[in-house]
Amino acid sequence: MSTLSPTPRSTLTRKKDRAATDRERLYEVLDGGLICHLGLVLHGSPVVLPTGYGREGDTLYFHGSTGAGNLREAARGIDVCVTVTLLDGLVYARSLNNHSMNYRSAVVHGTARLVTGEEKMHGLRAVTEHLTPGSWDHARAVNAKELASVSVLALDLSEASVKIRSGEPIEEPEDLDSHDIWAGVVPVRTTLGEPVPAPYLPADAPVPAHVLDRKLS
Amino acid sequence: MSTLSPTPRSTLTRKKDRAATDRERLYEVLDGGLICHLGLVLHGSPVVLPTGYGREGDTLYFHGSTGAGNLREAARGIDVCVTVTLLDGLVYARSLNNHSMNYRSAVVHGTARLVTGEEKMHGLRAVTEHLTPGSWDHARAVNAKELASVSVLALDLSEASVKIRSGEPIEEPEDLDSHDIWAGVVPVRTTLGEPVPAPYLPADAPVPAHVLDRKLS
Repeated sequence: MSTLSPTPRSTLTRKKDRAATDRERLYEVLDGGLICHLGLVLHGSPVVLPTGYGREGDTLYFHGSTGAGNLREAARGIDVCVTVTLLDGLVYARSLNNHSMNYRSAVVHGTARLVTGEEKMHGLRAVTEHLTPGSWDHARAVNAKELASVSVLALDLSEASVKIRSGEPIEEPEDLDSHDIWAGVVPVRTTLGEPVPAPYLPADAPVPAHVLDRKLS
Repeated sequence: MSTLSPTPRSTLTRKKDRAATDRERLYEVLDGGLICHLGLVLHGSPVVLPTGYGREGDTLYFHGSTGAGNLREAARGIDVCVTVTLLDGLVYARSLNNHSMNYRSAVVHGTARLVTGEEKMHGLRAVTEHLTPGSWDHARAVNAKELASVSVLALDLSEASVKIRSGEPIEEPEDLDSHDIWAGVVPVRTTLGEPVPAPYLPADAPVPAHVLDRKLS
């Protein structure tokens, strides 16, 4: 929230610019991840669990079984922390101390709320379309019994931060000429393999476009 | 802790077998991940941050700047939860409700302790060799000033659980003949790209074997 600019007008502009940029980056990280790590406090201790999610505008949606203790707690309106991390590279520097990782991470704090009615179906769609885009229209819809067995939670993206490390290693001046030590980045990527049809599918069943064309951003 | 076996002898054997299997799986997940998500409670609220780590036997090590608030808190002996997740596949089922993910995750609960002296260097080595094996012997060693600027924490693997979902989708009996809906798994893999040398390296600097041969388990 600090600014180097002394005038109210430029302050406003700078803040607006930064907010827009940060928000785009936040969306980029959240939309680029496949799973999040959901943290909450249970009986005084932290619990961190991998969870599916989906974003719609400035809301994150999660779902889970109504029997899952962690989501039941979150539904009561307790604080949660949701973190999505995209690992981009292993950073080798001349010194061990400057070894690092290239990554983009988003951390969202807030109070999750249980959603019902129309928004519940909305949230389920967001979660489904995040992980398996196209499935919502292709697969068999959720029936009443299934809908009752699942909890959907929503979390506002109002309190969120993004952290990014990218590019080459940082070196101490004393290490810059140590050419016998390698320095650089080994890129890390998440990729999708060839779809593996379930054994009960007819042998000639075509793989639909929404599965074949699934891309990671 | 439950068993179907009625005799003390077979009970013991079964439990031992299971413990051994679970421990191997725990090691497999922890050793296969690149980063963990470290959760702790700060001012009553959960915080989840991506963190580097390394395992040695039944101890996990982490490191961070002595200025990092989350590690400073953990060093005071508060509860932490460390989760490592390996995502293996997107699971497409006939029904939306049976869409899922294939994954292996390890969740470790415990109280982190700050390590000093010989074990601190030991822990740094474990963290370095986890992410960038071979760097410990290749790169410039940690000097006294650098050592003072970093905190190393240790966490016992005594309270840990592993969760695994693998294989084909699960279907409701009513969906098994819906052959117009595709079902199967799209594998998800983490891969390493070609090493990118830092721009200050001599053009003819060879990429050392420990970087070229870096493999993900």
